Amino acid sequence: MENLHQYIYLADLLGVAVFAISGALAAGRKSLDLLGVLIIAVVTAIGGGTLRDLLLGRSPVFWIVDPTYLFVIFAAAGFTLIYSRYNKPPLQSLLIADAFGLALFAILGATIAESAGVPWIIVVILGTMSGVAGGVLRDIITNEIPLILRRDFYASAAIAGIMVYLLLNEAGLPQNGAYFAGFGVALSLRLAAIFKGLRLPVFQLPEEPS
Amino acid sequence: MENLHQYIYLADLLGVAVFAISGALAAGRKSLDLLGVLIIAVVTAIGGGTLRDLLLGRSPVFWIVDPTYLFVIFAAAGFTLIYSRYNKPPLQSLLIADAFGLALFAILGATIAESAGVPWIIVVILGTMSGVAGGVLRDIITNEIPLILRRDFYASAAIAGIMVYLLLNEAGLPQNGAYFAGFGVALSLRLAAIFKGLRLPVFQLPEEPS
Amino acid sequence: MENLHQYIYLADLLGVAVFAISGALAAGRKSLDLLGVLIIAVVTAIGGGTLRDLLLGRSPVFWIVDPTYLFVIFAAAGFTLIYSRYNKPPLQSLLIADAFGLALFAILGATIAESAGVPWIIVVILGTMSGVAGGVLRDIITNEIPLILRRDFYASAAIAGIMVYLLLNEAGLPQNGAYFAGFGVALSLRLAAIFKGLRLPVFQLPEEPS
Repeated sequence: MENLHQYIYLADLLGVAVFAISGALAAGRKSLDLLGVLIIAVVTAIGGGTLRDLLLGRSPVFWIVDPTYLFVIFAAAGFTLIYSRYNKPPLQSLLIADAFGLALFAILGATIAESAGVPWIIVVILGTMSGVAGGVLRDIITNEIPLILRRDFYASAAIAGIMVYLLLNEAGLPQNGAYFAGFGVALSLRLAAIFKGLRLPVFQLPEEPS
Repeated sequence: MENLHQYIYLADLLGVAVFAISGALAAGRKSLDLLGVLIIAVVTAIGGGTLRDLLLGRSPVFWIVDPTYLFVIFAAAGFTLIYSRYNKPPLQSLLIADAFGLALFAILGATIAESAGVPWIIVVILGTMSGVAGGVLRDIITNEIPLILRRDFYASAAIAGIMVYLLLNEAGLPQNGAYFAGFGVALSLRLAAIFKGLRLPVFQLPEEPS
Repeated sequence: MENLHQYIYLADLLGVAVFAISGALAAGRKSLDLLGVLIIAVVTAIGGGTLRDLLLGRSPVFWIVDPTYLFVIFAAAGFTLIYSRYNKPPLQSLLIADAFGLALFAILGATIAESAGVPWIIVVILGTMSGVAGGVLRDIITNEIPLILRRDFYASAAIAGIMVYLLLNEAGLPQNGAYFAGFGVALSLRLAAIFKGLRLPVFQLPEEPS
């Protein structure tokens, strides 16, 4: 059990680093100054977890209790700045970094909500929020239409992954395995949406004079 | 007293349903996918109360404590989806649903703030926030100019209703009566703004070179 | 020590008044109605401190505990409305009011975070958030690109001021002196950015097909 906690902590730091990279890449596309890049990296990386902690009443929030998160974000954003000065970032790097962060944080958020003893529907919603809120804030601040509202499989991927995690856990699988399976489902669905165009049906309201 | 609490709980669920409908209708106008519709319905329905609870330090917030709210939102959003596939929604349906939600949540938010023992000016402000925040979030996410900033009587209707409620309560009216009167005033003023063009005077700053 | 607390309280009220003026001026440029002006003044003035309190878990937040803040905001917004009906506001008045508020709240936010016993990096971040969040909310609501993302020295001024405050405090200067020095540095840097074009280098990502 101790091992699982350590593993989750490392996964959490990894998720924070990945979202910091995605934030820094998004900021670079908007030609912000160095501090602007840091701010967007921080907001993207901690936005989802902060919202989750505030709603659950876990305060002070996680990155105030443990500033390691911030140093990881600064390192990841700095690395992105230096790397992309000398190299062309891999194609669609922003979308792929975002997909990893989404899947990681969705499952992590779900386990944290679970350990607070809330009903399963709240576990799904808080996990999804943990996964998507950082990216939504990044997109609002850099004035892009949030990925979540573009019509491909985004929050849906998080929800499907969390459901798989909950069901396998319920079925008696060790938490470790359920955790990996949920993460894999969320990530695969999101990558399928990026590369194969997987999407949900659209709701189109008939025209109404207003 | 027990009856009043039950009544308030039902009114709260009704307000949540009405705002979920208004969120789903707004999402339908933007051709979002099914999950996007649910997300906007949820944000619209719980945004105001969540902000109120966070500011008052009531955590976990109300819909985490009692997931009934979420099931009501899902049902209301689903109903809206199905209904508007086969029927043209009534004229100005979005604005009218929004007016009901605004009036209900303003008075409900005020009573909750009141029972937390805060000064009257805070009761007015938290009540108003409860009424308007969900709709503001809905409009920001769907990229509309928030109704609150369009120049008709919006937050003003909430404030007037809450003031009437507080004054009648102070004057010794049973809370039930004060509650209904405040709700009626807020709703009538908002409907008057929609159908009769009631509005406040505008503040126009003289031009200033910048 | 008692004197310092009283002094800080007065400085806090002054910061709230200055940000309320900056909010009212911004609202005036958008021709909002009277209530819209009040709402934007309130959001600008209390946004930063509210975010700080929520993240630190200090709830209810400061303006619910002490409604004096709200009356100061109403007075400052009312004064701005009346003054600017009869006088042309001084050139760049909005930017200068904003600079004062930024410097004041950054140092105040830092001292409050400090007294909560958090690590220095968190003191810097929460202080900076206290300084910038109100203005960011004002700019998002009035649909302007946030000052923080325009490429001049904005959050950087807050960070530099807080760093100076922390270093002088660490070096054994009386808190009073460190406080003034930090405020002076933040304000001067921000004014230098406004009038002399002081800015940070820009991070420009090489073009990437997407």
